[in-house]
Amino acid sequence: MKQVDRFIHAGTVITMNASFDLIQDGIVVVDGAEILDLGPAAEMQAKYSAVETADCRDQIVMPGMVNAHTHAAMTLLRGLNDDLRLDVWLGYLMPLEREFVTPEFVSLGTQLACAEMIRSGITTFADMYYHEPAVAKTTAEIGMRALLGQTVLMFPTPDSPSWEAGIKFCRAFLEEWNGHELIQPAVSPHAWYTATPELLQACAKLALEFDVPVHTHISETLLEVENCREQNDTTPVLWNEQNGILETKLLAAHCCHINRQEMRVLKKHGSGIAHNPSSNLKLSSGIAPVPEMLEVGCNVGIGTDGPASNNDLDMFEEVRLAALLAKVVRHNPTDLPARQALELATIGGAKAVHMADKIGSLEPGKLADLISIRLDGVHNWPHFSNNPENVYSRLVYAAKSTDVVNVMIHGRWLLQDRALQTIDEPTAMAKAAEVAAEIDAFVLRRESSPYNKLIILEAVEQEEAYETQIKIPLQAADPIIEKLKGEPFTITKQTRYRQFDTYFMFDDANPDAARLRFREDHYLGEDNQVESSRSRLTLLGVTQLDELQNSVMLSRTRFMAPATRSLRFYREYFTPDQEIEVNKERRRWRVTYQENDFAINLDQVLKPETEGWFLEIKSRTWSHADAIRKADLIGQMLAELGVSDSEAIRKEYVELAQNG
Amino acid sequence: MKQVDRFIHAGTVITMNASFDLIQDGIVVVDGAEILDLGPAAEMQAKYSAVETADCRDQIVMPGMVNAHTHAAMTLLRGLNDDLRLDVWLGYLMPLEREFVTPEFVSLGTQLACAEMIRSGITTFADMYYHEPAVAKTTAEIGMRALLGQTVLMFPTPDSPSWEAGIKFCRAFLEEWNGHELIQPAVSPHAWYTATPELLQACAKLALEFDVPVHTHISETLLEVENCREQNDTTPVLWNEQNGILETKLLAAHCCHINRQEMRVLKKHGSGIAHNPSSNLKLSSGIAPVPEMLEVGCNVGIGTDGPASNNDLDMFEEVRLAALLAKVVRHNPTDLPARQALELATIGGAKAVHMADKIGSLEPGKLADLISIRLDGVHNWPHFSNNPENVYSRLVYAAKSTDVVNVMIHGRWLLQDRALQTIDEPTAMAKAAEVAAEIDAFVLRRESSPYNKLIILEAVEQEEAYETQIKIPLQAADPIIEKLKGEPFTITKQTRYRQFDTYFMFDDANPDAARLRFREDHYLGEDNQVESSRSRLTLLGVTQLDELQNSVMLSRTRFMAPATRSLRFYREYFTPDQEIEVNKERRRWRVTYQENDFAINLDQVLKPETEGWFLEIKSRTWSHADAIRKADLIGQMLAELGVSDSEAIRKEYVELAQNG
Repeated sequence: MKQVDRFIHAGTVITMNASFDLIQDGIVVVDGAEILDLGPAAEMQAKYSAVETADCRDQIVMPGMVNAHTHAAMTLLRGLNDDLRLDVWLGYLMPLEREFVTPEFVSLGTQLACAEMIRSGITTFADMYYHEPAVAKTTAEIGMRALLGQTVLMFPTPDSPSWEAGIKFCRAFLEEWNGHELIQPAVSPHAWYTATPELLQACAKLALEFDVPVHTHISETLLEVENCREQNDTTPVLWNEQNGILETKLLAAHCCHINRQEMRVLKKHGSGIAHNPSSNLKLSSGIAPVPEMLEVGCNVGIGTDGPASNNDLDMFEEVRLAALLAKVVRHNPTDLPARQALELATIGGAKAVHMADKIGSLEPGKLADLISIRLDGVHNWPHFSNNPENVYSRLVYAAKSTDVVNVMIHGRWLLQDRALQTIDEPTAMAKAAEVAAEIDAFVLRRESSPYNKLIILEAVEQEEAYETQIKIPLQAADPIIEKLKGEPFTITKQTRYRQFDTYFMFDDANPDAARLRFREDHYLGEDNQVESSRSRLTLLGVTQLDELQNSVMLSRTRFMAPATRSLRFYREYFTPDQEIEVNKERRRWRVTYQENDFAINLDQVLKPETEGWFLEIKSRTWSHADAIRKADLIGQMLAELGVSDSEAIRKEYVELAQNG
Repeated sequence: MKQVDRFIHAGTVITMNASFDLIQDGIVVVDGAEILDLGPAAEMQAKYSAVETADCRDQIVMPGMVNAHTHAAMTLLRGLNDDLRLDVWLGYLMPLEREFVTPEFVSLGTQLACAEMIRSGITTFADMYYHEPAVAKTTAEIGMRALLGQTVLMFPTPDSPSWEAGIKFCRAFLEEWNGHELIQPAVSPHAWYTATPELLQACAKLALEFDVPVHTHISETLLEVENCREQNDTTPVLWNEQNGILETKLLAAHCCHINRQEMRVLKKHGSGIAHNPSSNLKLSSGIAPVPEMLEVGCNVGIGTDGPASNNDLDMFEEVRLAALLAKVVRHNPTDLPARQALELATIGGAKAVHMADKIGSLEPGKLADLISIRLDGVHNWPHFSNNPENVYSRLVYAAKSTDVVNVMIHGRWLLQDRALQTIDEPTAMAKAAEVAAEIDAFVLRRESSPYNKLIILEAVEQEEAYETQIKIPLQAADPIIEKLKGEPFTITKQTRYRQFDTYFMFDDANPDAARLRFREDHYLGEDNQVESSRSRLTLLGVTQLDELQNSVMLSRTRFMAPATRSLRFYREYFTPDQEIEVNKERRRWRVTYQENDFAINLDQVLKPETEGWFLEIKSRTWSHADAIRKADLIGQMLAELGVSDSEAIRKEYVELAQNG
């Protein structure tokens, strides 16, 4: 008789194998990290003797669930802000992430997430976030299985100042973790719309080189699809295909708005789809056409998405919601019945994350990732035995994550009798409370009343850019204009306009949002006639003005919104403590200098009436490091223009006006 | 200092009063069944001294939730059959209910339901089912608050053989329970489409007489709305209004498909709406336009619906789903934010069930129906304090029903530290398992393979009718035909057709579903030419043939479906053990006799070739008692027709053919 490590003796074993076998009074035989065998208890007891037997005879034993899409570390941002438009929500979160997301942050957030996921019966999760090496280290220490996608963006991120640096960071991550028994590193271009074609192609190439998956967002919102058609003349799936992403082992999150052709393309490439029902409802993205995807034959899994947009990591809620929602897509209550919904959460998810050869079902030779669940709570009582298959509907429609009792991953118990075995939950929670207090302080500092009032009023866009700028008074404009016409400058656009600014000043506001600018731009044509105009509101901070080399200043624009109402309205609405007007006539050139874009302004300040001209050179950037590089370029440009920075003024026009 | 019964000392008190006050470190002062006062702890401690203090300082204390629509006793049918079309589902359930639903059944089912609801923080529920006096007795004993609607249907029900009897039963229920401190009895016409106008009007009258609410289903599905427009030339809400239902304190469940005009009408009458998001998805009914209802100013509450269509009674799941779903109705993620979703589950629900003067918020003078909840699980961590209002999003988007710790109703603890105080849960669950076993046996008996196969194949309709019938061989048809032309018969319709029946017989099938009939009717015109035809499949039982007086037999037709495929297909699909053909030419009269409808057939059996004629008199009925009455009428009709029942044949044609 063969000696093995463990028997898991279940009331019912749900195998989720190809024939959906159910074994009443069954034993799963685990040896090392693997399932050696499984079958009726008597049969297994006759073949093997086990060092240890887990008595789950009053429980269901089934494959652990696969959370096919999340941003685990965002547990630390859970419930911070809800019920907002997606753009506002991102505008709210992204500055926070830039401020707080460090390797320590993601490690702590991952600990919380793993605790919650293990408790709710998840054994594998597919992640996408920043500082994934820290996520990998923490996850491996805890003993969970994960596909971890290192995010690459065209913008600076908490871990990489540029996308090229992001690719490099990702490569190092793959080198370090590929081949680990628990961790499958992956490449995560965030989405096509935060990527250039070069970025997408570089990600695909990197993933193919290491033979690792790509984990990205595709077709989350209708707006995204419309934008893609407009910009790329095709749909997001096909655009990803054109840029090589579908050649990889792709895991595409959301796919709320894909058509049948795109489904066929995803199927042809063996791509996985992660359906995130809660998040798609909460952010108003829509309802994914899951029944049709399954009809076409796509590999569909279910994900929780990040806890900042869900707000939890409860796969029982997601599976139930997936099953319920599918029934209104085609007005058919027989769509996505319970067994199929559970399939998506287990073997379907395993296929979607490209691990179906190892996990997703209980079968000899697969890894021992399994969970046990009690279904004898009053909320799941009584049981009917006329059809053994209704165990699936008990699990999907009535069970709760809190019914999970034991969780094994890779042959190791991570939850026993509802106690976490590898996570110090109280310590992690205490640390999380400290981080939350820091975030609270940051938010309170930021969210003085003008900000909140603006958020409430308008569709605010977060202006993510840092702005490097220099301002120098001049006696004459013509010499500058002459120099701009030739090498090394290339003019890409030239405009002329009158700019009427009214600044609302707030005495008691926090310094990050102390000024609200109402700006009316009147564009001038050849004959000095006003051709068009636009109005915008911008909430500005003052303390962000740091001085770089060459007297270049660094500022951060904060929040911007189209001004759809009158100045009089805004005056009454915001009740500023002080009001300052600045009017000027501006000539503006957009120029390329050493492959970088700059704006060059020649301003005449009309109110308060000011002698002479001001030269401004400005550039947007996405990171502090890039700002330093651009400050250096501005210094070179000043030399080319024959202007010294010794006269540079370290103030905004409004401050000049304010000080008289 | 005033002495009071109880302090409930909370970390945060969520009042849900008109200004949504939150009290940090607050005390709710309870004296008897009432909230005497509430406020900051220090203030309350200075004013009152309490006999007992419940220390909930690490918890949230809030009003108990109002489950605005359920069929509580259906816990005993939970998960019995899922993922079916609504008609199939009803066809499956209704015969079971007729068989099993007794006062003992509903009492036990209510015990289970109350246990589950109390555990999930529900303090008041609005019910609609049969044998409500038993529901009332059980609920009052447990100590829960409820609006209990006694169902009235135009069909026989488990408690009333006719709707008139139903009204009488309901009146007795109102007399017994109206004025009870916990139980609000109500009148429940099931829905307009299971009611005649007279029934609706009688219900409205009864409710007004006792000044009690009416609890009914309105506009659950699009099909219902279409049928209403077709039959009544108006919408379900307006049809109810025309029949006086809106004059009452109405609680309208579902309202998935109501328009703005109907919303305004409901608002004008102060009607309540119960939104049931899980059930509406699961049965594919649709998504109710809740944001618009709230915009119009309707009183909207949230309900779980019955546990047979949900499959649990978890208000946390419903509130979360209500908040999430609302955001895709108008593609607006700011619709139904967390606080408003919780409002619907508390004070909104109280308004919808017409109890807002007594419950729904924590305010001095209201009844002490409150719950306490821990929000410190890892699934709800960390907490941010920059905005105290985000306690609502923690409750709505991340809390689970299992986070509920204590529940007080009418000043009495029904759940303390998660232990039920007034329900013997283990005993109730053991009894429920026994009932489930009986139901299992019934279902297994019924569901032999032909039934299941039919269900899978076609859109099956449950034929709810009993059929009374007599069959008598005759030498000549003409004397009968002559007699039918005059008093006391009134002919309403006359047809002639050839009927080609093929019976599939199953040896091992259960006797309830032993024969499947494929029937092709060829309708004949004046000139004996076939004018039209139709094909139907009917699954028939044999054991239901009971003999009543006058040799009248009682049978129950089982399930009927349009036959959309060929006989050859069905033969291969069902693989019957035996096949019997019966062809006949039939002349059929629909006649009214003493205000009852009967079908009279004069049949010539062509295959197997049979001499002479057969006279059949048949009538559908909805109850055994009515069948006995109709058997008596058939006896009278035979006398009028001059036919003796001594020759009556107690067999179906197929049995005559079978026996040669």
